[in-house]
Amino acid sequence: MMTENEDECDVQICRLMKPDDANIAGNVHGGTILKMIEEAGIIASTRHCNNPAHMNDEYEPSVSALVRVETTDFLQPMFIGEVAELRGKVTYSAPHSVEVQVMVTAENLLKGTKRLTNFATLWYVPMSADEKGKVLPAPPLKCPSKDVEEAGRARYEAQKAERRRIGLGGRPSLLIKSNDFYDDDGSSETLTVSHSRSSLIHLVGPSDCNTYGYASGGVTMKLMDEVAGCVAARHCRTNIVTASMDATNFHKTVRLGSICHLTGRATFTSNRSLEIEVMVDTEYLLAGSDVRERAVHAFFTYVSLGPDGRTQPIPQLKVQTEGEKIRYEEGKLRYEQRKSKRAANKQSKPSTS
Amino acid sequence: MMTENEDECDVQICRLMKPDDANIAGNVHGGTILKMIEEAGIIASTRHCNNPAHMNDEYEPSVSALVRVETTDFLQPMFIGEVAELRGKVTYSAPHSVEVQVMVTAENLLKGTKRLTNFATLWYVPMSADEKGKVLPAPPLKCPSKDVEEAGRARYEAQKAERRRIGLGGRPSLLIKSNDFYDDDGSSETLTVSHSRSSLIHLVGPSDCNTYGYASGGVTMKLMDEVAGCVAARHCRTNIVTASMDATNFHKTVRLGSICHLTGRATFTSNRSLEIEVMVDTEYLLAGSDVRERAVHAFFTYVSLGPDGRTQPIPQLKVQTEGEKIRYEEGKLRYEQRKSKRAANKQSKPSTS
Amino acid sequence: MMTENEDECDVQICRLMKPDDANIAGNVHGGTILKMIEEAGIIASTRHCNNPAHMNDEYEPSVSALVRVETTDFLQPMFIGEVAELRGKVTYSAPHSVEVQVMVTAENLLKGTKRLTNFATLWYVPMSADEKGKVLPAPPLKCPSKDVEEAGRARYEAQKAERRRIGLGGRPSLLIKSNDFYDDDGSSETLTVSHSRSSLIHLVGPSDCNTYGYASGGVTMKLMDEVAGCVAARHCRTNIVTASMDATNFHKTVRLGSICHLTGRATFTSNRSLEIEVMVDTEYLLAGSDVRERAVHAFFTYVSLGPDGRTQPIPQLKVQTEGEKIRYEEGKLRYEQRKSKRAANKQSKPSTS
Repeated sequence: MMTENEDECDVQICRLMKPDDANIAGNVHGGTILKMIEEAGIIASTRHCNNPAHMNDEYEPSVSALVRVETTDFLQPMFIGEVAELRGKVTYSAPHSVEVQVMVTAENLLKGTKRLTNFATLWYVPMSADEKGKVLPAPPLKCPSKDVEEAGRARYEAQKAERRRIGLGGRPSLLIKSNDFYDDDGSSETLTVSHSRSSLIHLVGPSDCNTYGYASGGVTMKLMDEVAGCVAARHCRTNIVTASMDATNFHKTVRLGSICHLTGRATFTSNRSLEIEVMVDTEYLLAGSDVRERAVHAFFTYVSLGPDGRTQPIPQLKVQTEGEKIRYEEGKLRYEQRKSKRAANKQSKPSTS
Repeated sequence: MMTENEDECDVQICRLMKPDDANIAGNVHGGTILKMIEEAGIIASTRHCNNPAHMNDEYEPSVSALVRVETTDFLQPMFIGEVAELRGKVTYSAPHSVEVQVMVTAENLLKGTKRLTNFATLWYVPMSADEKGKVLPAPPLKCPSKDVEEAGRARYEAQKAERRRIGLGGRPSLLIKSNDFYDDDGSSETLTVSHSRSSLIHLVGPSDCNTYGYASGGVTMKLMDEVAGCVAARHCRTNIVTASMDATNFHKTVRLGSICHLTGRATFTSNRSLEIEVMVDTEYLLAGSDVRERAVHAFFTYVSLGPDGRTQPIPQLKVQTEGEKIRYEEGKLRYEQRKSKRAANKQSKPSTS
Repeated sequence: MMTENEDECDVQICRLMKPDDANIAGNVHGGTILKMIEEAGIIASTRHCNNPAHMNDEYEPSVSALVRVETTDFLQPMFIGEVAELRGKVTYSAPHSVEVQVMVTAENLLKGTKRLTNFATLWYVPMSADEKGKVLPAPPLKCPSKDVEEAGRARYEAQKAERRRIGLGGRPSLLIKSNDFYDDDGSSETLTVSHSRSSLIHLVGPSDCNTYGYASGGVTMKLMDEVAGCVAARHCRTNIVTASMDATNFHKTVRLGSICHLTGRATFTSNRSLEIEVMVDTEYLLAGSDVRERAVHAFFTYVSLGPDGRTQPIPQLKVQTEGEKIRYEEGKLRYEQRKSKRAANKQSKPSTS
């Protein structure tokens, strides 16, 4: 009974990686993978929330909206010609949100080998398909055991606390229009923050959107990885690849016909990694006003690969202004947290790949 | 052991249908579905042919090339916002070819309902990944029973006989450059063959191709359905949808940088269906010469949907020239064969959906 | 005050060039660049026309439609892996039209070098977002000085005169359905006009269109460059690239669900360049009638690159019919005008790149 239920929520996606999914060195963009992860996530969540087995008289059809992605590591590179296989599963359900876990493997069809490349956790909120902006209750998930349910609730509470912290003062500057992000002293000296600062501006078209006229979270993440990649390439001038995306909240949904302003800037360099902060502001062209709203804010980590495909040292970032120095120190802190978290994960999951 | 092996060859693809996948009425194009079917097919076949369990010392990596698709019916319409789920499985293996069966279901996420939309059978040939044009042996498939194996062999022999018949005299005119296909008496009278005759001309770009620089069979089928759809729209001026594609052989692979010339013409109308013949000729732009080669030839059947989503009568085709009359009679024959075949299938598989 | 205003109208687009954006030799298609230029243009113009600072009580939201592109030279090639950076700015506003200038640079991320590749001028008309076909007034632009305003007005008047000249008889054959464009004597001799004559036929889908169901001017220009590229490749059989597009008017907007018929033919060869005339006719499939309308007409100039990336001599065009000879002479005239204009530009702008 239980297993049947779980199977229904399973989603599996396979796709052959093509030249456009990758950079010149043949490495599939992290953004391509994030986009596919979100596609698996939204199918799994929407399917769970509209499952006829969960319906009662008050049932109202819902479409899931991405609100948060937990830290996502890119464990192994993926290459053109390989098959990306994604398996998504609903793993926890709170009163108004659903957790989906997605596992990504890369398969070399010619060699017959598979390797784990990503493991991602996404949070969705069911939104009414009929009434714009109305949040609906998420149906409960039968968990196979008490322990599994407890672990899920702990993950739910942790992310809720984290989101509240950011919203209520932990980092208020991110939610209002922080002008400092757009400041640019125009320094042309190499390896400075100004030098690698990059922007992408994208007009949201029909193929970026779902049936309800909103850009999918996956499209936004792909653009975010693209602008981070520009910063990394400008700073390193080598074959750079995404190593991780930190936990990221999606504050605003992006409408069809909006302009997405994406800006990326380097914040910190360790010996072999570069941290990049990415902001997404959105502006609806036909609105009477000129309001730009912060839709997403995230930190990406990039590494540089040598001709042998192994990571190599990163040129160190030159910080100049007071703000850059503060952000560098904050970046260092995040870097150390990531490192210790990864070490803890390795100990607890010896059999990951 | 057996089932494990089978599972390895299984492939599952889920994809949310977007505006780009459908016509203005929201019906997903038959061509979109054919393209996804071929994507599932090529992954399943390439995976089977490179499975390490099948390898020996002489093993050489191979890429599968589509050589034939059996008659594919579109049993039910699919809509934007639904999830297409495709399950592919290798079902037979001959010395140099592999049969893949793909089942397609459409899932309405909001209602939680699923329905079978297609069942397709594709034949692939493993080609050397290193040496252009070299056909490789296909590894054997362990069949669950003697009966299953016999049935597979019968399908294999039947399609081989069919392909030989066409090649050796059954309809040689299709393989050489038949000028009559390009003839157009320029009649502007509505409902004639000339009136709805349509062409598409497409430059084959990188995203149409696999890593080896060949257009995937799925891309070609999508374009074929597109040109057939133009013919049907011109003839009916209503919401028209693909009802079936007859068994189709792929004579030539299409190279990156080629121009695909697709032409479609109406050949026959029954009360509620329109048969359209589609030719694909290909021309490699950078070749010293100007040779056009026939790559594919197929028959599509379209139906017209009324505002209630049900099929409605089709305006009858006016045939004028001698050739048009002959093709009309041939079309009538195919129409009756399809009808009796479908009736036979219904009797033998009462529980399909 | 002034500078703030200017900044608001600025638009910046950065995009990484991918395999799909380029030909087999890695040169980014001129059409890709024209498409991005138009994207920058439409954002700048639509933003200007909906700027709250310009609004009064009668304000009505508008979408900008491309009506004209001034001659656009491709000064330098761009390659896959480079970042295209486009900066657009509204530079003049007439009562019902807006001028946008776009500067394009290519940045080699690995070398850290940037070079100017294009400088384009586009004219837009604000159309009502609510009422189809209604032209709206364009808000005025505060110009930094009297001289700047005068120069803008002069450009506005010059293009208006040019458009009126074409419309009123200067070149009437271009605006009506000129059958001679479709005539083909079927000559198979190489280097003749017939031999390299090329067509593309494209069904306009949702991703080609804006939110209002009209193909963007950029999509049309990309297809135009594609068909011109086919002509050039057939004539030269080498690595050919776009050198310029002459000033081009957009007579008709192209609807979603239309078929675009693009035809290109060689008109003139100089020692190192090939001029190609491109016609775009459009036909709305679901219309009761079969009317094809001329949407755009343009002249492209192509050059041929040798293995060292430098231009090389072009095989001379063999003109045969009376019409071909007349068009050759007209082409020669345009060639000489372009040459003298470019020489004049060089003198007046010594510091362009």
